Amino acid sequence: MDRKVFGVDIGGTTVKMGMFTSEGDLLDKWEIPTRTEDSGKNILPDIALSIKEKMDKAGILTEDVVGIGISVPGPVDDEGIIHKCVNLGWGVFNISDEMKKHIDLPVFAGNDANAAALGEVWKGGGKGCKNVVVVTLGTGVGGGIIVNGKVLSGYIGAGGEIGHIHIDDNETEKCGCGNTGCLEQYASATGIARLAQRRLEKDNEPSTIRSVSHMNAKVVFDAVKSGDKLAIEVAEQFGEILGKGLSIVADVTNPEVFVIGGGVSKAGPVILDYIKKNYVKYVFHASRDTRFTLATLGNDAGIYGSAKLVLDGVRA
Amino acid sequence: MDRKVFGVDIGGTTVKMGMFTSEGDLLDKWEIPTRTEDSGKNILPDIALSIKEKMDKAGILTEDVVGIGISVPGPVDDEGIIHKCVNLGWGVFNISDEMKKHIDLPVFAGNDANAAALGEVWKGGGKGCKNVVVVTLGTGVGGGIIVNGKVLSGYIGAGGEIGHIHIDDNETEKCGCGNTGCLEQYASATGIARLAQRRLEKDNEPSTIRSVSHMNAKVVFDAVKSGDKLAIEVAEQFGEILGKGLSIVADVTNPEVFVIGGGVSKAGPVILDYIKKNYVKYVFHASRDTRFTLATLGNDAGIYGSAKLVLDGVRA
Repeated sequence: MDRKVFGVDIGGTTVKMGMFTSEGDLLDKWEIPTRTEDSGKNILPDIALSIKEKMDKAGILTEDVVGIGISVPGPVDDEGIIHKCVNLGWGVFNISDEMKKHIDLPVFAGNDANAAALGEVWKGGGKGCKNVVVVTLGTGVGGGIIVNGKVLSGYIGAGGEIGHIHIDDNETEKCGCGNTGCLEQYASATGIARLAQRRLEKDNEPSTIRSVSHMNAKVVFDAVKSGDKLAIEVAEQFGEILGKGLSIVADVTNPEVFVIGGGVSKAGPVILDYIKKNYVKYVFHASRDTRFTLATLGNDAGIYGSAKLVLDGVRA
Repeated sequence: MDRKVFGVDIGGTTVKMGMFTSEGDLLDKWEIPTRTEDSGKNILPDIALSIKEKMDKAGILTEDVVGIGISVPGPVDDEGIIHKCVNLGWGVFNISDEMKKHIDLPVFAGNDANAAALGEVWKGGGKGCKNVVVVTLGTGVGGGIIVNGKVLSGYIGAGGEIGHIHIDDNETEKCGCGNTGCLEQYASATGIARLAQRRLEKDNEPSTIRSVSHMNAKVVFDAVKSGDKLAIEVAEQFGEILGKGLSIVADVTNPEVFVIGGGVSKAGPVILDYIKKNYVKYVFHASRDTRFTLATLGNDAGIYGSAKLVLDGVRA
């Protein structure tokens, strides 16, 4: 019997879970709610219970499982120590040790953005590449940097924080992180909506996006596709800022490919055009041919990457 | 007999060479001229001859040598393929294969900035750390990024090109690379001289650096130390730009320490003060405590790092 691997992606509202073959084929996936009350003390027991139920139902024994990979929304160091997950109510503790109290399987943990990046490199948009930067344009802007097939975690697990690259000296509004002028303030879903709102308020130029009740990245890029001039201005500004930011990331890490994911990427290849044409204006010539592609695993990137953490960890 | 390692650092005018123990103790160092004529075809034979002479003189046999590490001023990929070294007249070729025609020893090659970084992490300012960014402020600005003890080379060996991070949208003069507004245009030795010159031309404010015949970083920072107001303005501008640039490098790579080397670093710890106080204004909070220290190996960093390439390569 081929051994199984579990990939677990803990989010602020749901825990996504997947059962994989050790080749990385997804056999089954499901979700449970994330119970963040009482400092999130139920989260790991809930996960353990859910995996045990799945194993029982499918007749899978402990020895048939390579391990459980868990990604969390916060920094995790190479020893598996969680350094606070505000969204889960968690403080500082060793997740493997804690999880072993509830289930007798090897546990490997990582940061969620990094795990999603690892997933995209293993089975998604970056498949077959060893040096990849995965950019997640969601509520915020997340990054996962893969160097020679491994996640660049950095000294305390804060590698790949590309959403907080300082990009604009003239910004007056604060980013959630406390700084001003972070990449995330322009290139996230909320950032694009903000750029659009700012542009609309500037003058009375007619635009199809003027009448929408809920501004978001999809609205903007749909209008771009239908030739709306004002929306195109917003897309240019988005591309200018993100292209400039990613040019710097490339100067530092020289990836083979940028994989663009997250909610904003649902707008499709049009966003790559706006990013790439601005990127080449700023990047050092050695990285001018770096490819841009869309992420392909969507919300499953995290469970894929978590499963891969186990396979890499067992091999290491 | 402890086995020996040779570290060779090929520059545009001289080749620096060192003989080390396999523990990294420098036993002997010397230089030969770099003969760049005839497409640099004499460079490798000259190096081989010089090493053979050194071995003969010291009675060292081939089996007493672990190998030769060579760093070159251009991109080198993980297979040891040189991708053009304009300063040496070299095109594209495999340096190990070529060198073996002249001397029967294992050869490992790398980019010079990366090798210097590896040297500083092995025996210099970054000793004992696994995640380090080495910044060389010389004629240009070079970078070497060490992740988990290994050089981040990137896809085609262009990782760590931090001198060409785009930092100023308002710049009108071109950088040597063809872009405008690169970090190198402000933070290199020539960049600092340029900042000083620009400031002097702005008005007639008195300053001790007004009368100097040859403006350079040392002149500026000497004046800073004696309280010259205009020089302090220039230092602030340098620190603002470099601090901002390095904040981005930290957001991407999260190092434990920045090691600052190159000619500019001879001005001493005062430059770290100007960099760090601006760095903390821009960096993501997780990297706010990153340390800054001066490089300690000076011009020997390259031969140390080249020797380390051999030891890492043999072990891999």
